[in-house]
Amino acid sequence: MIVLKESDLYKKVAQLLVVRASGYVLDSRRQFPQWELKNSELKQLLEEGIGGVILFGGTTFELQHRTKTIRSWAHQPIFLCADVEEGLGQRFEGGTWLVPPLAVGQIYRNDPKKATAIAENYGACIGVQARECGLNWVLAPVCDINNNSNNPVINLRAWGEDPLTVADLVSAFNKGLSSQGVLTCAKHFPGHGDTSVDSHLALPIIEHDLNRLKELELVPFEAVIASGVETLMTAHILFPNIDSKAPATLSAQILTKLLREEIGFDGLLVTDALVMDAIRTSYGDEEAVVMAFEAGADLLMMPVNPKKAIHAICNALLSGRIPMTRLEESLHRRQNALDKLTTFDSTVCGQAHKFDCQFIERKEDKDFAEDLLLRSIKIRSKVNNGNIERDINLVRIDGLFPCQFLTNHSPAFLLAEEAGYKTTLCHQMGVSPWQDDAENPLALDRFGDGSFLLQLFIRGNPFRGSLFKKEPWLATIRQLQRLNRLSGVILYGSPFFWNDINQVLEKSIPCAYSPGQMNDAQKHVLLSLLQTQQDKQMTTLQFQEFTD
Amino acid sequence: MIVLKESDLYKKVAQLLVVRASGYVLDSRRQFPQWELKNSELKQLLEEGIGGVILFGGTTFELQHRTKTIRSWAHQPIFLCADVEEGLGQRFEGGTWLVPPLAVGQIYRNDPKKATAIAENYGACIGVQARECGLNWVLAPVCDINNNSNNPVINLRAWGEDPLTVADLVSAFNKGLSSQGVLTCAKHFPGHGDTSVDSHLALPIIEHDLNRLKELELVPFEAVIASGVETLMTAHILFPNIDSKAPATLSAQILTKLLREEIGFDGLLVTDALVMDAIRTSYGDEEAVVMAFEAGADLLMMPVNPKKAIHAICNALLSGRIPMTRLEESLHRRQNALDKLTTFDSTVCGQAHKFDCQFIERKEDKDFAEDLLLRSIKIRSKVNNGNIERDINLVRIDGLFPCQFLTNHSPAFLLAEEAGYKTTLCHQMGVSPWQDDAENPLALDRFGDGSFLLQLFIRGNPFRGSLFKKEPWLATIRQLQRLNRLSGVILYGSPFFWNDINQVLEKSIPCAYSPGQMNDAQKHVLLSLLQTQQDKQMTTLQFQEFTD
Repeated sequence: MIVLKESDLYKKVAQLLVVRASGYVLDSRRQFPQWELKNSELKQLLEEGIGGVILFGGTTFELQHRTKTIRSWAHQPIFLCADVEEGLGQRFEGGTWLVPPLAVGQIYRNDPKKATAIAENYGACIGVQARECGLNWVLAPVCDINNNSNNPVINLRAWGEDPLTVADLVSAFNKGLSSQGVLTCAKHFPGHGDTSVDSHLALPIIEHDLNRLKELELVPFEAVIASGVETLMTAHILFPNIDSKAPATLSAQILTKLLREEIGFDGLLVTDALVMDAIRTSYGDEEAVVMAFEAGADLLMMPVNPKKAIHAICNALLSGRIPMTRLEESLHRRQNALDKLTTFDSTVCGQAHKFDCQFIERKEDKDFAEDLLLRSIKIRSKVNNGNIERDINLVRIDGLFPCQFLTNHSPAFLLAEEAGYKTTLCHQMGVSPWQDDAENPLALDRFGDGSFLLQLFIRGNPFRGSLFKKEPWLATIRQLQRLNRLSGVILYGSPFFWNDINQVLEKSIPCAYSPGQMNDAQKHVLLSLLQTQQDKQMTTLQFQEFTD
Repeated sequence: MIVLKESDLYKKVAQLLVVRASGYVLDSRRQFPQWELKNSELKQLLEEGIGGVILFGGTTFELQHRTKTIRSWAHQPIFLCADVEEGLGQRFEGGTWLVPPLAVGQIYRNDPKKATAIAENYGACIGVQARECGLNWVLAPVCDINNNSNNPVINLRAWGEDPLTVADLVSAFNKGLSSQGVLTCAKHFPGHGDTSVDSHLALPIIEHDLNRLKELELVPFEAVIASGVETLMTAHILFPNIDSKAPATLSAQILTKLLREEIGFDGLLVTDALVMDAIRTSYGDEEAVVMAFEAGADLLMMPVNPKKAIHAICNALLSGRIPMTRLEESLHRRQNALDKLTTFDSTVCGQAHKFDCQFIERKEDKDFAEDLLLRSIKIRSKVNNGNIERDINLVRIDGLFPCQFLTNHSPAFLLAEEAGYKTTLCHQMGVSPWQDDAENPLALDRFGDGSFLLQLFIRGNPFRGSLFKKEPWLATIRQLQRLNRLSGVILYGSPFFWNDINQVLEKSIPCAYSPGQMNDAQKHVLLSLLQTQQDKQMTTLQFQEFTD
């Protein structure tokens, strides 16, 4: 069957797709050109009726113009969404970048009231900046309970490790986010917290049955649905005790029977990215799209080939495999969400977007981010200054190109260098620092004979969340301790790995932990850890006095 | 003496300064915050009457908005300039990035007519994009004759290695650039080509006397002055046989007696950046500014502290050290240049700048850039495909953060990886690849046991032009040849180092040379060098087919 691009059916189905583009204006700046459409391609798809765009990368300044341009290419209202779970600054430079949600979950342990207030503020901070940038849909909160410390992809993105913490915090977050006039999205249904496989690379399997899900994983989703969340996102996870064949994203048992019928959610349901290998490899690109729609998803996120996806769904509808009523239902839910945005626009915003605003981060956003950052940092004693050109500032990151939290003037480099350390950067693409000796894994002859300040940037990142486990950092800490060559250890990232480090770290070694990896986290950690009373040069990040 | 900011004198002197800012809109994106003013600082200085801004970094899209904003902050016409000797794309992503001028000089050897036509087109390509981005002053052409192959900072930036080649090409370039309605700037007077010291780090000394200069170094300057260049830039070089005390930038002998009186140049004379160590360390920040002005410079580029610089010049004028007539002369020359821009605006441009244009690179610019690139590449035989996960794609760069020509999808990585090589990146900040053995400098145990494809990015770069000489690449080539572990060698950069490589490289080893380092250069070199007849996957850089 051939479905013409001009046909009503084609245009209706096109509305169900969300495609990926860069927040950068220029094609040449796209950070992931294999996934991000060129401008010419994006414009054409929008003219054909594509219903939404998810944006990654760029500055908030560019994003404001970008969303305006994209809207002008579409002939209808569309969704403009982004994965800004940790603030606009997580994806778009110039926005506020907050420490990950799990840090709020840790505050909740001692002070649930304070944590709940922070979560609401966290949502509001994202909402106001998203709206200012022209986005109308924020793909948060993560409602997964991170009860598996080996989770390579949720980890710090979760709001907690137990159902009540997560339920309380995501409800508060959702309230704050919603209050700013953008749609929100609870993910990843029915729960992604108990996996130890990265769904970007392979299909995770969770053996829990429905009773267990109801006791644990579903609790935050039910809370946030009760508090009025407009949209949900599916998980690419197989629950063989609920549906032995299809992972949640493709499972009618989970999406229709459990979510629609049992739980009664009638909002908009979007799939997680359909380019992820957990889905692609087992089912084929187009069949996966049709299966997701057939199973009950309304919107289809990032299909591998948007045009083929539209054709495949059209064919499934024309052949009778999927009833036309399903299409009408999904379009109806889509329209409801868009209608809610119209209400927002007239009530919350009250006026047209101010697209000329260059600086979207308000003073209260900065203060909030800093307060939360300071609450989340842990520091034990102080590091002595380094021996210039001898002691080593060993900085470990996942990868370069892009590395969002490091520039030539990042505190992780500059402050350590000002204190006398010489930086060596360790990353997957560099010359290996390792030798084949389990007890002495760091090849010391590659570094010279000074002491080491270790700065490890390790958190669960999609595609490379487990990479660091191949790197023997714990054995390295033991090795350097034995040799009396460890000045200090800083971990930016996973609290679970921080626990592991504390198992091997001698109590005399200065150390610090921050869940955030951003420049401000580096600055605060290093200023505290390196500062001595005599040493005033440490107290400022200013390089050039601007005097009158 | 205290000079009030509101005084006429302060405002007049302020007009002589050119300060540095980022092309990026956001303060947080500045690539060199130690040199680039914050927005709040820049705005204040412009309100006080600063006469010009030099911009570095950002996209051409941002630059268009940036220049508009900066103009709105100034209460008078100002210069907006950039160091885009090799095309807008050299500094601002989205613009055309051309192979360095010396490649045109090499074409001149065999085909002077073609090379001259290319030089004119080269200038026009820069001019049209600069104007489109809101710049009105391009700091080119480099008129230095690179007759010293050890020159760490001019090198590929020169148009040739002899006076006639350079004179012909810079005149043609200047004609093309001028034709697009921007001011041009011949640099670095009286000639920077015969130095082997980086003036960013120390003061170079050239022993030539005036007769030699007249025979060689001055020839291109006289040619380009005759062809109507509006502005000249000084060199931070000491010529003890002309002025035993002051380097050219601070020398009345060179700037006033030689340039103004003997040569008769009455255009605008600007200093090279006054933050450079060649000037700062010997004379002190404010004294250097006063000396430059006293010696005959009209505009003062990048003083360390703009406000202190204004005060210092005011004081020199009020104390009678420098006569007020010098100020009036410089302001008069400044006004002449601005008047010429007004003429340009009404004749060349004919209409208001189109600030909404997102994509400034025209098809003819792309075609021109590609043609010139292909003319400049040299390739000898073909590389066999790598042994997957065994053979090593060893990429050597000066430094990261920023590395303008590498991203996660650069051909230097992707094409080599598609051909079976595994990338290891070598840079100053990484784990060392070297061992202490002059004959076998590469520590092979850090790489595994495959063959090496060497991709060396080495050219004369300010601040690190000579760094690579500490790295034993020639000995490494000999080492890998002896072990039969050299698959191929690619050099992106210096033709002089390419000659050195050819002295040691066996004739059987595939190799390639490109003066350009940009992604397109990597693509063309690797497609040619790696392609085999059976191997069709090499023929395209597309990762994702976009099919209808």
